[in-house]
Amino acid sequence: MKIVVVGANGTIGSAVVKELGQRHSLVGVGRSGGEHQVDITRTDSIEALFERVGKVDAIICAAGGLHFGPLGEMTPAQFNIGLQDKLLGQVSLALIGQHYLNAGGSITLTSGIVGSEPIRNGANATAVNLAVEGFVRAAAIELRDGIRINAVNPTVLLESWDKYGPFFPGFEPVPASRVALAYVRSVEGGQTGQVYKVW
Amino acid sequence: MKIVVVGANGTIGSAVVKELGQRHSLVGVGRSGGEHQVDITRTDSIEALFERVGKVDAIICAAGGLHFGPLGEMTPAQFNIGLQDKLLGQVSLALIGQHYLNAGGSITLTSGIVGSEPIRNGANATAVNLAVEGFVRAAAIELRDGIRINAVNPTVLLESWDKYGPFFPGFEPVPASRVALAYVRSVEGGQTGQVYKVW
Repeated sequence: MKIVVVGANGTIGSAVVKELGQRHSLVGVGRSGGEHQVDITRTDSIEALFERVGKVDAIICAAGGLHFGPLGEMTPAQFNIGLQDKLLGQVSLALIGQHYLNAGGSITLTSGIVGSEPIRNGANATAVNLAVEGFVRAAAIELRDGIRINAVNPTVLLESWDKYGPFFPGFEPVPASRVALAYVRSVEGGQTGQVYKVW
Repeated sequence: MKIVVVGANGTIGSAVVKELGQRHSLVGVGRSGGEHQVDITRTDSIEALFERVGKVDAIICAAGGLHFGPLGEMTPAQFNIGLQDKLLGQVSLALIGQHYLNAGGSITLTSGIVGSEPIRNGANATAVNLAVEGFVRAAAIELRDGIRINAVNPTVLLESWDKYGPFFPGFEPVPASRVALAYVRSVEGGQTGQVYKVW
């Protein structure tokens, strides 16, 4: 399969590339580095990416920024960061990407444990992650030509535990290599409209 | 209690006003009509509203636009309509409104059945409604001074069934008067971080 991996240079993306790269033809895409670049917050950037890459069999997105901060100081503009980046960015990749997928292809987006398990400073993350999962469940009933769509919902990564652990008391981190397997389930499996939790 | 009702002229808002107006002092707010006006997509408009109204005991929002349309034709700009209006609009009302609430006050936002039950043309609605519910669950753990926040999740209204029924095959409509009771549960009850389903 020819698979586009957006966020290929990130911690999750690298693990996905390592896992799926063993048996598929991958197109690694980064924000500024990698074989190809895309700014998922810009429609023209996403369209330019697919025009260069052409038809593919799977689209994976493991990218998207959020705002973390105390609710008492949060502004609408800060809340909009996650809406425009991790939410609308991934949705845009799916909306535009659906027209560049071969029949039977798949889209795999990324949510996260804070959608289901709120933490302090995480109101933006909870809302955005649940919205991504909602989009996936709803899009699954409308995609044509056997195209599937799922989300991977990872907990905190072991690789990021030193940095983020203090914000996740009592959470169990998992290695990115385990999270990568959920993307394999989505791409090579047969289900659609699913959220694969890795926690 | 002094209660701000945004969307007071809508089908749900009118029923809420009828129910809560029996024993509370209501401030009805519409987009263009009513005692006061607000454009929830504009921060300055929300701030101006609260500067005029002053401290309140409860904020209710039964307003917010969405995009409905086939996924195969949906553009990122169309998907952003619901993000900026029903999602960020309500979140902004909560983020700004928290600073104008008396201790022990409450915020009640509105999601909808399509968050849990996807329908064709409804990808934007599913994502937005779940995000609103996620925001409520996350914000509940951070609000200070005993301020509570909940969401009401109504199914299709009996009053709108002629117009929207064809998009909701097999759904059971409910009268707005029943939906209004869920807002009463949120405002006068003691729970926080809840989603009151009316279906």
